[in-house]
Amino acid sequence: MAEAEDRESLLGSNRDRSSSTDSRRRHNPFMSFRNRERWSNYPPTMYPRTRTEAVKRAHGDEGSLTRDVENSRDNDENEITIDNEQSIPEKLLSARFESLDYDICENVLYQREEKQKTTKGIIRMEVARWFVSLVIGVLTGLVAAFIDVMVEKCSSLKYSYVKNYVDSCVDNHCLYVPFLMWIGFNAGICMVGAIITAYGEPVAAGSGIPQIKCYLNGIKIPHVVRFKTLVCKVVGVVCAVAGGLAVGKEGPMIHSGAVIAAGVSQGRSTSFNLDFKIFEYFRTDTEKRDFVSGGAAAGVAAAFGAPVGGVLFALEEGASFWNQGLTWRIFFASMTSTFTLNIVQSYVKGHAWDLSSPGLINFGKFDNTQYSGFEIPIFLIMGVIGGLLGALFNQINYKLTVYRMRFIQKKWKQVLEAMIVAAMTGLLGYISIYFNNDCEPMKGSGDGEPVQFFCQDGYYSSTASIFFQTPEASVKNLFHEDIGSYNIETLGFYTLGYFLLACWTYGLSVPSGLFIPSLLIGAAWGRMFGILLQFLLPHADWADPGKYALIGAAAQLGGIVRMTISLTVIVVEATGNVTFGLPIMIVLMVAKWVGDFFNEGIYDMHVHLQGVPILGWEPPDMSANISATEVMSHPVTVFRSVESVGRIMDLLKKETHNGYPVVDDYSPDRCIRRGLMYESFGTFEGMILRSQLIMLIKFKVFNENPDINSLQTTLKSVDFRDAYPRYPPIQLINVTPQEREMTIDLRPFMNPAPYTVTNSASLPRIFKLFRALGLRHVIVINNEHQVIGMVTRKDLARYKIWRHRGQISMEELLISHS
Amino acid sequence: MAEAEDRESLLGSNRDRSSSTDSRRRHNPFMSFRNRERWSNYPPTMYPRTRTEAVKRAHGDEGSLTRDVENSRDNDENEITIDNEQSIPEKLLSARFESLDYDICENVLYQREEKQKTTKGIIRMEVARWFVSLVIGVLTGLVAAFIDVMVEKCSSLKYSYVKNYVDSCVDNHCLYVPFLMWIGFNAGICMVGAIITAYGEPVAAGSGIPQIKCYLNGIKIPHVVRFKTLVCKVVGVVCAVAGGLAVGKEGPMIHSGAVIAAGVSQGRSTSFNLDFKIFEYFRTDTEKRDFVSGGAAAGVAAAFGAPVGGVLFALEEGASFWNQGLTWRIFFASMTSTFTLNIVQSYVKGHAWDLSSPGLINFGKFDNTQYSGFEIPIFLIMGVIGGLLGALFNQINYKLTVYRMRFIQKKWKQVLEAMIVAAMTGLLGYISIYFNNDCEPMKGSGDGEPVQFFCQDGYYSSTASIFFQTPEASVKNLFHEDIGSYNIETLGFYTLGYFLLACWTYGLSVPSGLFIPSLLIGAAWGRMFGILLQFLLPHADWADPGKYALIGAAAQLGGIVRMTISLTVIVVEATGNVTFGLPIMIVLMVAKWVGDFFNEGIYDMHVHLQGVPILGWEPPDMSANISATEVMSHPVTVFRSVESVGRIMDLLKKETHNGYPVVDDYSPDRCIRRGLMYESFGTFEGMILRSQLIMLIKFKVFNENPDINSLQTTLKSVDFRDAYPRYPPIQLINVTPQEREMTIDLRPFMNPAPYTVTNSASLPRIFKLFRALGLRHVIVINNEHQVIGMVTRKDLARYKIWRHRGQISMEELLISHS
Repeated sequence: MAEAEDRESLLGSNRDRSSSTDSRRRHNPFMSFRNRERWSNYPPTMYPRTRTEAVKRAHGDEGSLTRDVENSRDNDENEITIDNEQSIPEKLLSARFESLDYDICENVLYQREEKQKTTKGIIRMEVARWFVSLVIGVLTGLVAAFIDVMVEKCSSLKYSYVKNYVDSCVDNHCLYVPFLMWIGFNAGICMVGAIITAYGEPVAAGSGIPQIKCYLNGIKIPHVVRFKTLVCKVVGVVCAVAGGLAVGKEGPMIHSGAVIAAGVSQGRSTSFNLDFKIFEYFRTDTEKRDFVSGGAAAGVAAAFGAPVGGVLFALEEGASFWNQGLTWRIFFASMTSTFTLNIVQSYVKGHAWDLSSPGLINFGKFDNTQYSGFEIPIFLIMGVIGGLLGALFNQINYKLTVYRMRFIQKKWKQVLEAMIVAAMTGLLGYISIYFNNDCEPMKGSGDGEPVQFFCQDGYYSSTASIFFQTPEASVKNLFHEDIGSYNIETLGFYTLGYFLLACWTYGLSVPSGLFIPSLLIGAAWGRMFGILLQFLLPHADWADPGKYALIGAAAQLGGIVRMTISLTVIVVEATGNVTFGLPIMIVLMVAKWVGDFFNEGIYDMHVHLQGVPILGWEPPDMSANISATEVMSHPVTVFRSVESVGRIMDLLKKETHNGYPVVDDYSPDRCIRRGLMYESFGTFEGMILRSQLIMLIKFKVFNENPDINSLQTTLKSVDFRDAYPRYPPIQLINVTPQEREMTIDLRPFMNPAPYTVTNSASLPRIFKLFRALGLRHVIVINNEHQVIGMVTRKDLARYKIWRHRGQISMEELLISHS
Repeated sequence: MAEAEDRESLLGSNRDRSSSTDSRRRHNPFMSFRNRERWSNYPPTMYPRTRTEAVKRAHGDEGSLTRDVENSRDNDENEITIDNEQSIPEKLLSARFESLDYDICENVLYQREEKQKTTKGIIRMEVARWFVSLVIGVLTGLVAAFIDVMVEKCSSLKYSYVKNYVDSCVDNHCLYVPFLMWIGFNAGICMVGAIITAYGEPVAAGSGIPQIKCYLNGIKIPHVVRFKTLVCKVVGVVCAVAGGLAVGKEGPMIHSGAVIAAGVSQGRSTSFNLDFKIFEYFRTDTEKRDFVSGGAAAGVAAAFGAPVGGVLFALEEGASFWNQGLTWRIFFASMTSTFTLNIVQSYVKGHAWDLSSPGLINFGKFDNTQYSGFEIPIFLIMGVIGGLLGALFNQINYKLTVYRMRFIQKKWKQVLEAMIVAAMTGLLGYISIYFNNDCEPMKGSGDGEPVQFFCQDGYYSSTASIFFQTPEASVKNLFHEDIGSYNIETLGFYTLGYFLLACWTYGLSVPSGLFIPSLLIGAAWGRMFGILLQFLLPHADWADPGKYALIGAAAQLGGIVRMTISLTVIVVEATGNVTFGLPIMIVLMVAKWVGDFFNEGIYDMHVHLQGVPILGWEPPDMSANISATEVMSHPVTVFRSVESVGRIMDLLKKETHNGYPVVDDYSPDRCIRRGLMYESFGTFEGMILRSQLIMLIKFKVFNENPDINSLQTTLKSVDFRDAYPRYPPIQLINVTPQEREMTIDLRPFMNPAPYTVTNSASLPRIFKLFRALGLRHVIVINNEHQVIGMVTRKDLARYKIWRHRGQISMEELLISHS
């Protein structure tokens, strides 16, 4: 029939996207080669080799499947061999990372537990959630206060020593003594921090925001929420800041809050082998992730005194599904955290009840909070500058990071590098104070006492006032000092020097926040901008350099990190004044647009360099024509609903997948219909996780076991949660040869109704399902309800969209197994 | 085998939840009677009859299914007959409401369109989205400015007339003249507003927040985003505020913004039959809803000068799936809206560029922005008071609303009621000014000139200064007047009077915001609280009544509306100062907790009284044991993949369902397995919407049609979007008897892979899928991929959780077809 053929072509039209549809490919519609060709377009030695030893497409290690590698190589022209020197770090996905599972396994054990729930139980659980949030908030606030106090103590010790020697040496001509002293202090303190980080817990390096972002996105980064990481982070950041590096202590607070949340909510510490037997119900990925978002928010709240900003940060970075109750609880944790910090800081500063220090940094009180409509274009220009400088910063840091990944892998090299940078920072500060004779008459305002240094009596060195104190104090000075406090040369020199230093510093093996350096750079050129404006328009008394310093700081920050609404709120809350909301929004928006034209935000950049399979907010553009059969991995390893212990053991040992479909009977089936080959693996019945199988074998829930009855009734969900998250490896579990012959009935334990899609579902559809519900596996079934494939995070994350310089292109990343 | 039986009981354990499992019920596992018994517990005449004429369970009119009513009545003891006098409004779901569909139909037409997308096209679309957001923001700001100017003009006209007469009549003893004049003005202006609302567009009544909440939740409220509604809303709110009612103009702004967004984004007006042929791609529920959230946010931003609050409002009320790009665009619209309003208002007030009026209301500049830690307990107490008063307010308003639904249905009665309330408001004001001799010496501060009224020269009437001006000005006065400005009696009288008036007013047939009255009540008792504190603790100079007025206002507002994080941010932004953030959060949190103990927030209450099938954030507690087979509606009306035109026409005319599963062949099948009866309706192939079927018949895409070829290729997605959202009714489409015999191949047009669940999925699982992805239909299939039922919004919304006074209980609502 003619119609049938027409229909056929119509129905088939979503398949013949690639122009060179040859008959061989049509026989295997599951394979996708579309974007392979693009690989050959990259210059072979454009990027150095990184951590990748061998790169091969295929075999996503998560999910119960192995890509049919042999099968997919039927097309020689598309064959790719990427040797070591050619791999492009950000074009690779690492197979190291596992996913979190936000889905609930609704098996019989869960059903039984749910059935026993009472009103009282539900209320008790809810109270427990609020209580945990409270504890998270309090502890995060206390940790923040601890960091702050320690940094203050160490810094003031260091600076007072150096200052004393300067004061005496200016007359005695021994200026090399304080100089060497400063350098020595910096290098020494930083060495401690770097050693702790590099040898203690390398994941504690950096700001921690990329890691938390990944965690909230649903990726298990090894060790990221361990107690040891927290200790390294806290001690390390104190060392880094006190060591004079161009780093802030705010970013690390977010990571610290997350670790605290993960620890408190689980009611135990695996590091100390302590189990308080509380909050056992929270020992699942779902609950833990909820609390971790609360912890991250509490961290932001403590860092910037920005509870609302914290909530928005958690939402922007993590919570795919906005839930009012959860959000409100996150808000509570944030509020508690900033309040705790406030109380402690007020107490430390001697005015116990006045609650004036809600965050580690606050921008101080702006006297002039007015701006006029005609300043909007000026803000736009500043936004553009921020975007450009930010893109440049990220580009340099990208090159540097790639270089580091290649050449600075050894731990001692990392420590050495940190020491060099610390020494350089001291050197730059000292030299600029020495040579830049910007002495201003003493007036005294802003934070910290003015530093006389090499200036005459009655004058203070304005250069020293930026270099010779903690970065937080410098930011406040730049915002609030009187108009004449800094001259243009000082600011210009400072912008350039600090820009390069900060760029070099981010990525060192020390915990290091990026907010404060960005704010400092921006405040310096913003202030310069304001002074220039006053110079150009002599009657412009509205051109307050402090105000422009704030706008510049926002622009620079926006240009580097490219966060949107949460950053706006954080800056507004840190400013303490809503009036500047609009200009800050404008510059952040423009800075992001301009920066995004060139490259990614620095956090995203680092995430991609690590090869983390992070999922964006929306499915990639132009992916609507990619169908499930192309996305999915297959063939699939499946288990029968009543499976022999031996086969389970063997497969678990052989493969590293984390989820396996359960089918009625294992019957791999190939059939050719309408010229297309379909392969299926039995009728889908449910889904079982590796961890569940391990526990079943450990508890010996075998059908031939005499006391199966009691086992099945005594086995509870809590037994599974108890082992969470570190299940014993299958290799450590012994079964006798007799037991190997027994079977396990998986049906009471499997998830009977996991989310599935059919083979005709499109990539965006799967993506939305995956992202909105925080899934770990989606099973692809055909119209007969048979398993034909499986989609995991990596299968989706492979499809990456790049939109730079006005171009949008999609490409498939490779999966690296290094 | 013994194990098999054990397993059977284990597998079956999620079914025999109800203790009285009799054999009859086991034969029909799809029916659920669990909560029916509860109905009999309600006193038969506790609530009056409302709009419900006949209530019957079964037959959800949306989705292609009719509940098997006869079948479900096999259990006589559970039989319920609810006669008219017995129906409990909030225990009913109305069948009137349709759902929005956030899912994309990925049929062949869509695939074809996607395939043709280019980089340029994608960028153009994105630019269009930003442009639309800009226009939405500007227009919303302009409408807000228009409302503001009109209210100011009308009010000042009214007050100046009355004041002149008072001034002359105080000496001439003709005080009845200004009295009657005031009453007359009020009643007259309100009459206009009420007539416009009642006869023009009744959906414009009230604040509009419940309606927008429902829309963002995914429910189509008829006429809610029409142009006519906007006009009625704007004119009505001007009349209501100028008429002296205890209403604000802020709530209606949110609705106005939403209407503007819906209109602008569609690029045409069906009311004026205008089609600008632009933004045609946005003519889907998905895109429209995204823009409407932007409009609502812009409305909040304009109303309170709170762009961040606006975004959070849109998120809290609507967006189930947080999407960074969308959020950022919503933020842009909010920002534009508040900026536009700011510019216009600054211009109107004569200082064009100073940008000092970002919202319709702002709380003015607080001089004393400090608070101490020991005030926290005081704030907690105020939160409790706010929660209690709010719960009382809502309870009274609930009774009143139920009364209104019963007795004030006629339009003329509604107009009359509005006039009476307006007159009463005037009366109360006049009487209280007359009898309450609270004359204070002229000092002058706050907004508006002090009103002398019956006071001596050099004195002004502090009572008049609350009653005799717009509510916005009164709020500001209560916040900022000096300590001695109001005495306790005035404030007490005012609190009581305004509380009752506001309670009476909300629900009248005029557009009316609830924020300002709530703030006023709260500010009055908050100030009173502050004065009492100063009285009790004479040395407490920290007890600034203005500060306590602000806290009281927040507490009262929180107690009534029970919003969480968005409300906090709105209040903080309106205050213009972040310092009060913490106390405001605390009181809002406590007020919500206390209020929730007794009843729901007023918006939720009105939503439930309307029987709107709104879905909460989380699946109901204790619903994990309810399976898909109990939730779903069945039997299901299905179409074959190649279906005769006649059958389609007949079924569409007979039924009102909006989505139909497409199956390979229509083969209703009943089989009994393991003692359970399963009914299935053919192997599932896809899903087709009523609107698509109508368009297919209209375009005569029949297989026997000679030019099917060209039709199939010329028919584009845009043809379907073009008819959106008002598709022609099936009754208006004529087909010849010959055509009735033809067939339509539905496969190119159906959605080939809609989201499905299997029969063993639990209610929470379906709920999450539905809520996170904004679905309209979920199809339930069995393990052979056959359709066995369908779940729509109403099937889920039926399961309602009540948690008041420490009790949690779930019940099934009934569906009313009135």
